[in-house]
Amino acid sequence: MATRSTIMDTNSYRPELAGALPAATAGLVHRREQVLGPAYRLFYRTPVHLVRGTGSHLFDAEGNDYLDVYNNVASVGHAHPRVVAAIAEQAAALNTHTRYLHEAVVAYSEDLLALLPDPVDAVMFCCTGSEANDLAVRVAQQHTGGTGIVVSAEAYHGNTALVSGMSPALGTGQPLGTEVRTVPAPDGYRVATPDLGLWFADQVRAAITDLERHGIRFAAFLADSIFSSDGVYPDPAGPLGFLAPAIDVVHAAGGVFIADEVQPGFGRTGDAFWGFARHDVLPDLVTMGKPMGNGIPVSALAARSDVLRDFELPYFNTFGGNPVSIAAAHAVLGVLQDEGLQAHAARVGARVRRELTALAAVDPRIGDVRGAGLYLGVDVVTDPVSKTPDVATALDLVEALRDRRVLTSVCGPGNVLKLRPPLVFDDSDADRLLDAFDDSLRSLPR
Amino acid sequence: MATRSTIMDTNSYRPELAGALPAATAGLVHRREQVLGPAYRLFYRTPVHLVRGTGSHLFDAEGNDYLDVYNNVASVGHAHPRVVAAIAEQAAALNTHTRYLHEAVVAYSEDLLALLPDPVDAVMFCCTGSEANDLAVRVAQQHTGGTGIVVSAEAYHGNTALVSGMSPALGTGQPLGTEVRTVPAPDGYRVATPDLGLWFADQVRAAITDLERHGIRFAAFLADSIFSSDGVYPDPAGPLGFLAPAIDVVHAAGGVFIADEVQPGFGRTGDAFWGFARHDVLPDLVTMGKPMGNGIPVSALAARSDVLRDFELPYFNTFGGNPVSIAAAHAVLGVLQDEGLQAHAARVGARVRRELTALAAVDPRIGDVRGAGLYLGVDVVTDPVSKTPDVATALDLVEALRDRRVLTSVCGPGNVLKLRPPLVFDDSDADRLLDAFDDSLRSLPR
Repeated sequence: MATRSTIMDTNSYRPELAGALPAATAGLVHRREQVLGPAYRLFYRTPVHLVRGTGSHLFDAEGNDYLDVYNNVASVGHAHPRVVAAIAEQAAALNTHTRYLHEAVVAYSEDLLALLPDPVDAVMFCCTGSEANDLAVRVAQQHTGGTGIVVSAEAYHGNTALVSGMSPALGTGQPLGTEVRTVPAPDGYRVATPDLGLWFADQVRAAITDLERHGIRFAAFLADSIFSSDGVYPDPAGPLGFLAPAIDVVHAAGGVFIADEVQPGFGRTGDAFWGFARHDVLPDLVTMGKPMGNGIPVSALAARSDVLRDFELPYFNTFGGNPVSIAAAHAVLGVLQDEGLQAHAARVGARVRRELTALAAVDPRIGDVRGAGLYLGVDVVTDPVSKTPDVATALDLVEALRDRRVLTSVCGPGNVLKLRPPLVFDDSDADRLLDAFDDSLRSLPR
Repeated sequence: MATRSTIMDTNSYRPELAGALPAATAGLVHRREQVLGPAYRLFYRTPVHLVRGTGSHLFDAEGNDYLDVYNNVASVGHAHPRVVAAIAEQAAALNTHTRYLHEAVVAYSEDLLALLPDPVDAVMFCCTGSEANDLAVRVAQQHTGGTGIVVSAEAYHGNTALVSGMSPALGTGQPLGTEVRTVPAPDGYRVATPDLGLWFADQVRAAITDLERHGIRFAAFLADSIFSSDGVYPDPAGPLGFLAPAIDVVHAAGGVFIADEVQPGFGRTGDAFWGFARHDVLPDLVTMGKPMGNGIPVSALAARSDVLRDFELPYFNTFGGNPVSIAAAHAVLGVLQDEGLQAHAARVGARVRRELTALAAVDPRIGDVRGAGLYLGVDVVTDPVSKTPDVATALDLVEALRDRRVLTSVCGPGNVLKLRPPLVFDDSDADRLLDAFDDSLRSLPR
C-alpha cells in the first residue's frame, strides 16, 4: 500500500523540478525560496502564478483561465463584488476591536446564531479555524473537567501547538498530544459492516475507554462531519447515519461534541447549512473558519452558553470580530442566501457526482465517487477488489488536470481527489471539469 | 498594595452599571450580551460606540470626536486612504493562499527582511500575534532541543493554549505552563540597583538555573523589549542598557531570544524600527502583529534561517500571507516610510513625555512618566516615596479622560496608564491630550 508523507506535501512542487520550470515561474519560485521559511509548499510540479479571480475562475499572469475546483475559502466566488464592496466600505470607515461597541459584530452574531440550533446561542470570534479549535478544546476541557480528546485517524484541526497535536494528518513528525486518541474514519467504502453507525460508535467508545484506562477523563470528540482530511466521508447521514450513534456515546460518557465546520459549513454540502445538521446531531460547540469571510481572516466558535460559561479565563483576540472581517462575513451570509448557493451546490454537486460516477463505472482506477453538495471525493485505487489506495495515480491525475488548467488537490491517504470549488461553480464549469477529468484519465497510462 | 484581577478587566464596563447607561448604549450593550460569550469585555464605565475613524480621531454614533491615545493597531492612522485603497484593490483582484505563486507575498517579504538585521533572513506569515508566538516557541524548542521558556512576570504573549501559558498577565486563573518561568520586569523606577542590566541578567540566569534544576532544558527567552504588559519599561536602552546582558546570558545558556515586536515594532518607539534594535541586541526569532496591517489580520514570524530550518514539521496557515493582508501590510510599510512616522513618533512622543513629566513634577500621584516614541507609561502611585501602585486612581484617571473623550487604558499592575496612539498623533492631538490630562488630574479628589 502506498504511503504518504503528510498533507502538506502531497501534490507539492519539489525543488528538484526547478530546471523544468518556465523562466518567469522559476524566477519567482527562486525569489520566494530566498525569503519564505522552508515549511512553505507550492502546489503542482509546475506551480501556478495567479493574479486575478472571478467566480470559479482564476487567471495567471499571462491571462490563462484556470477552473478552480479546490478553493472553498472563496466560497461565494473569487472577488465577489458584494463582499469586495463590504470590505472596502468598512475599511474606509473604521476597523477596530471588540472592546468598543460596534453594531456590526452584534448584528452578524444575531444572524449567525439564527442559523444554528437553539442550544447554540453564543459566539466568540477569532481569525483562523486553528484559533477557533484551540479555544473550543479549552472550553470543552473547562466544562467537562476532562482533558481527553478523540479525533479521526487522518484529522486536521489546525496549526497551533494544541490542535497540531490533534491533527494526525500532519504526519508522524508531529506528535499527537498524550491525551489524544484517534478513531478510524467512517469509511463506508472500505469498512465491511452492516451498520456503519454502530461500528463508528464502537470505535469512539473504545477510544474513550482507552483514555479512561490511562486515567484521562474524556472531554470532547472533535470532528469534521464530512471527514474531509480523512478522505471525504459524507454518508450515510441523517438520524440513521454513521454519526448520530457516536454522538450519543460522546454525551453518555460526559463529553461534548465539537463540530468542526471549517470544511462542511456554510452550505457547502447542499443538504444543510452545517455539516452536523446533515446528520441530525446537536453539537455543543461549533467551530467555523475558511469560507466564512470569502478569504478575509475571520473565524468563530459558537457554543451552548451553558458550556461556554464555564470558561472563565480572560480571552481577547485583537483582530477577532473586527468590523472589516465582520463586514466580509456578513456579506458572505447575504450572498449565500440571496444567490441560493446551498441549493445550487446541491444541484450542481449531484450532477458532477452522477457524471463522475458514470466515468468511474468504466474505469477500474476510480474505486469510489462520494460527496455531498460541492464537496466531492474521488477515491483512486489500484483495483476495485482490494481497494488499495493508489497515491501515485491520484497525484498524476491532479497534475494532468492542472496541465488542463483545472485546479484540484488530494486528501485522505493522498489517493482521494478533493473537489471543492467555490459554490458558484455552475453547469458550464461542471462541463469543463468533467471533460478535463475524462481527458486526464485517458492521458494516464493504465 | 492594590491588586488587580487580570489585564482583561482592568478598565472594563461592569454589568452592574447598566442602569446608568444612555438608552441607545444600553440597548446595544444588552443585544451584545445576548450573543457574545461571557469572556467579552467593553472598555469604560460608559462604553463608547464608535462608527468612524480618521488619523488619531474616532467618532461615535452621534458624531462626537474622540482622541485615540490607545490604538497601536491603527498605526498609520484610522482608515488611512492608502491602506484602504490597497485592501480594496487587492480584494477586487484576488485573495487566495500561499500554495500558489503570488508576487506580493514575495515582494513584501523582501522589503520586510531588508528592515531586519542580516541573520534574520526568512519569514512565515500567520494571522495574529498569538499564532506567530505559538509558532515561534515551537521553532525555538525544535532548534534547541529544550522546552523551557522564560518570560517577564506580567507578560502577555497571546491567546492560544500554548502562549496563554506564557502570559502571566492573564491572571492566576490561567495556569502557566509547567516549563515556564518568570522574571521580574526591568522596572528602573522601583528596582534599587546600580546596574539594571546586570540585575536583569541575574534574574534571567536564575530562571534558567531553576528550569535546569527541574530537569527542563532551556529553549527561549520570550520578551517584548518595551515590556508593555508589565508597565512599559523602555530604558536604559543601548549596549549598556538593561537588555543586552540578559540576551548574552540567554545565548550562553544555549537558548534563543524571541523578540516579540507586536508592541514596540514598526517604528513606534521612535528610536528604531524595532524594539530590540533600541537595545542593540540580535534576536534569533522576531514575531510581529498588531500594527502590521493597520487592522487587517496579519502577523509574521521572522527568523534566522539556521534556526528555522530545524522546524521540520509541516505548517500551513490558510489565511497567512493572503494577498489582501499582504497588500495592507505593504501599504503600511510604505506609509511609515513616506510619512516619516518613526521620526514623527520620536519627536511628538518626546514632547508629550516632557510635558507629562512637568505635570508629574507638581502632582505626587504621578510617580513616573516613561516611554519611547509614542509608547508611554504614566505610573500612578499612592505616594512618591513608597511608589505603591494606585490602581483605583489610575482607573479613575482613565475614566476622567474618557469623559473628556480621550481614549486610554492601563497596563502593568493596573496603575500604569498606557499611551499608545496611532503614530500620526500630532502636536494638536498632543495639546488636547495634555489639556485633558491636566484637567482630569484636577478633577480627581486628592
